[in-house]
Amino acid sequence: MPKASIIGGGVIGGGWAARFLLNGWDVAVFDPDPEAERKITEVLENARRALPALYDRLLPAEGRLSFCPTLADAVTGADWVQESVPERLDLKHKVHAEITRRAPSGAVIGSSTSGFKPSELTAQGARVIVAHPFNPVYLLPLVELVGDAAHCTQAAEMLRGIGMYPLTVRQEIDAHIADRLLEAVWREGLWLIKDGICTTEELDDAIRMGFGLRWAQMGLFETYRIAGGEAGMKHFLEQFGPALQWPWTKLMDVPEFDAALVELIAEQSDAQSGHMSICELERLRDDNLVGMMRALKRTGSGAGGVITAHEAALAAPAPMGLPVTVDRTVPQTWADYNGHMNETHYLEAGAQASDRFMEMIGADAAYIAGGQSYFTAENHITYLDEVLAGSRLTITTQVLAAKGKALHLFHHMHRGDGVLAATMESLLLHVDLTTRRTSDPAPHVREQIDRFVAAHADLARPAQAGRFVGQRP
Amino acid sequence: MPKASIIGGGVIGGGWAARFLLNGWDVAVFDPDPEAERKITEVLENARRALPALYDRLLPAEGRLSFCPTLADAVTGADWVQESVPERLDLKHKVHAEITRRAPSGAVIGSSTSGFKPSELTAQGARVIVAHPFNPVYLLPLVELVGDAAHCTQAAEMLRGIGMYPLTVRQEIDAHIADRLLEAVWREGLWLIKDGICTTEELDDAIRMGFGLRWAQMGLFETYRIAGGEAGMKHFLEQFGPALQWPWTKLMDVPEFDAALVELIAEQSDAQSGHMSICELERLRDDNLVGMMRALKRTGSGAGGVITAHEAALAAPAPMGLPVTVDRTVPQTWADYNGHMNETHYLEAGAQASDRFMEMIGADAAYIAGGQSYFTAENHITYLDEVLAGSRLTITTQVLAAKGKALHLFHHMHRGDGVLAATMESLLLHVDLTTRRTSDPAPHVREQIDRFVAAHADLARPAQAGRFVGQRP
Repeated sequence: MPKASIIGGGVIGGGWAARFLLNGWDVAVFDPDPEAERKITEVLENARRALPALYDRLLPAEGRLSFCPTLADAVTGADWVQESVPERLDLKHKVHAEITRRAPSGAVIGSSTSGFKPSELTAQGARVIVAHPFNPVYLLPLVELVGDAAHCTQAAEMLRGIGMYPLTVRQEIDAHIADRLLEAVWREGLWLIKDGICTTEELDDAIRMGFGLRWAQMGLFETYRIAGGEAGMKHFLEQFGPALQWPWTKLMDVPEFDAALVELIAEQSDAQSGHMSICELERLRDDNLVGMMRALKRTGSGAGGVITAHEAALAAPAPMGLPVTVDRTVPQTWADYNGHMNETHYLEAGAQASDRFMEMIGADAAYIAGGQSYFTAENHITYLDEVLAGSRLTITTQVLAAKGKALHLFHHMHRGDGVLAATMESLLLHVDLTTRRTSDPAPHVREQIDRFVAAHADLARPAQAGRFVGQRP
Repeated sequence: MPKASIIGGGVIGGGWAARFLLNGWDVAVFDPDPEAERKITEVLENARRALPALYDRLLPAEGRLSFCPTLADAVTGADWVQESVPERLDLKHKVHAEITRRAPSGAVIGSSTSGFKPSELTAQGARVIVAHPFNPVYLLPLVELVGDAAHCTQAAEMLRGIGMYPLTVRQEIDAHIADRLLEAVWREGLWLIKDGICTTEELDDAIRMGFGLRWAQMGLFETYRIAGGEAGMKHFLEQFGPALQWPWTKLMDVPEFDAALVELIAEQSDAQSGHMSICELERLRDDNLVGMMRALKRTGSGAGGVITAHEAALAAPAPMGLPVTVDRTVPQTWADYNGHMNETHYLEAGAQASDRFMEMIGADAAYIAGGQSYFTAENHITYLDEVLAGSRLTITTQVLAAKGKALHLFHHMHRGDGVLAATMESLLLHVDLTTRRTSDPAPHVREQIDRFVAAHADLARPAQAGRFVGQRP
């Protein structure tokens, strides 16, 4: 197992720990704060609930988490050392001097800093790059990398391996990229609150009911490219240019951040969100992020593309007696008002099993692009036991019959505790996508099907096969 | 039918037209541009594809669209007049003088302007408020209202009726609220590009892989509240305060927007997105927005709450021979690689029909909150014909049997063209949510069920009822 060393716990360090652990890395934490273990455990609980829910395959088995009494213990044998201590340059220098001395010479050494540039961190000879993540680190893919090029390249490769999106900054600059944009909005926002133009809640609504939705999937420039229309980006820019001279912004001034302004914002924020605890807000945020990121998987835009690429690299289910066609965690977005996996998502999981089986017999994306596919004609599902969000779900697929155009499959759906939670029986028909009529499968697909038919010929017929709805057992 | 008058077509005027039309308003357009009809038709095509997909109920029947030769014709009898002409104050004054003279005295008169304040628009006596929307107007809910309080209140009520989110700005200010934040990011972004810190694509990634995802659902202040943790917003602010004094931002300077910078951005944008046409980008954006906004419906955060509230106000399906339990449009997020509605979503629609039927018999949200519900034990679906995204889907529900704990339902799923596209047969069992065991329904539910059993007693048994998978017809 690769090993990550987390120097400095808290929300950011804890987020890094969770991201590594849930991707199968061992994690060793060093933080003198006596609360560190509690804090990291809390972050980890949120992460266990949310991160696996992004994927339609199982993540690797969780790594081993340990807490170390000294920095030297924590960095021994580490492949990645991540520092997330408070933003004081003297402290960073002290910690990085020791990390450079103690860590393996080939390890990536990253700092979560937003306040310091690599040249500042390395001024006293430490070997370190900036690897600046975004909260919640276990869900948001972005990591800004700044510093030595070879070191950044090595880091980028490893980050992709844990499902993150490395963005290498071309030149070091105070606050890197994203925080400069955040800082600009923060300053302008403070003026709007201070001047009584809006409350914190109204400002949040001005973002999330409008441009926030645009930015989550396309960002700034691609959005404006669309606004420019067929006339092109250049035309748009030439129109927009003069507005820069307008006296809109107050950004040239820094608002006085006095007690009265702090009080005003804190009061408004309490009125807006005070009815929810931080933990409730975190889970609401995570549920929203999971739902939106799963939605983006469909088109591959932004974070959706990152998840799809990572998922493709996850291990395919190992072959067993019956082929395992799905092995995954049940996302909380699949739960319903009864507190368990909704009936619809049993079919969604079963359809994933059918899709996977189609790939196994060569009726894959290329085959479909070539104009042939299978359509489902009939499904029958028995719901045998409840499945809760976060549970593992493993599906095996048995071929009941396969003659001519018809393919008759049976899926067993098992929970992580081994209980048979549901079955799904499916009749699929081979279709020519041009005529939309049934047709015979291609010879190489026929051959693969026959292989499964022969292998499954002696298996017992499942008890639920051939049932009609309401039939006595 | 209420009537909206659209003065000035283009992307924004077209977006308004589509939003009104698809919510059942008649729309009259005035725009001397000979291209106006083509432009509005294009926006309308995108809107017809995307807006109904946000809802799990049918929107009202589309209103009537007309193009008028004069402004006077367009505003006759209007309930809402929306001006979206180019951002020149002399032109706005001229247009609004005529609108004020010609429009009904009780009509809302809104300007889409981001560049002018209400006091500027009304300086020559026109009656008008700012009603500033966000592109695409047919999907994003936000409208900033600024100006006369009573006029804004009247406008807010109407906007909620077409599924939008009115945000009344407390004091007029250049650029209102959201565009001040956008302007701040735009300025900072221009510096980052000009100084070669990143490309347009990298800057977009810095947003959409990180904080863009946070902002789409919670905005700025609620996100920071979470970052502050249990110590509270005040503590967070006191920590954050000093950073404002750091020399991070370049916002005090306006970058020189010369030909070289325009060229640089246009080139980078072409490299980033030039492989897609604007229409393709628009549809990708809309698919992403629909997917993310549907995901937010689950928690009710941000735009999700707006959709849910609007949906609840849409007319429930009218009773017929058999109860209509679903009447909706098929969203494009329900289509799959075969180019039609995926098998999973037939069950999703069928589950919505079962949920609606449960409400009809009194097993509603309050009943479930009281600890009783129905769990599905078995489903059988026959897929009879393809259903394409955008198609209407109407489901009727027949009670086949209902004794003791069991409720045996049969759903017919019809396409908009009347074709029976699928059937779903369901066996539900009444459950005590505390013990998770089957139990008898409450007397008032039993009574409603018996009413349906009696009403459906003489109906023919559907041909697909009692079928097993693969059975010969």
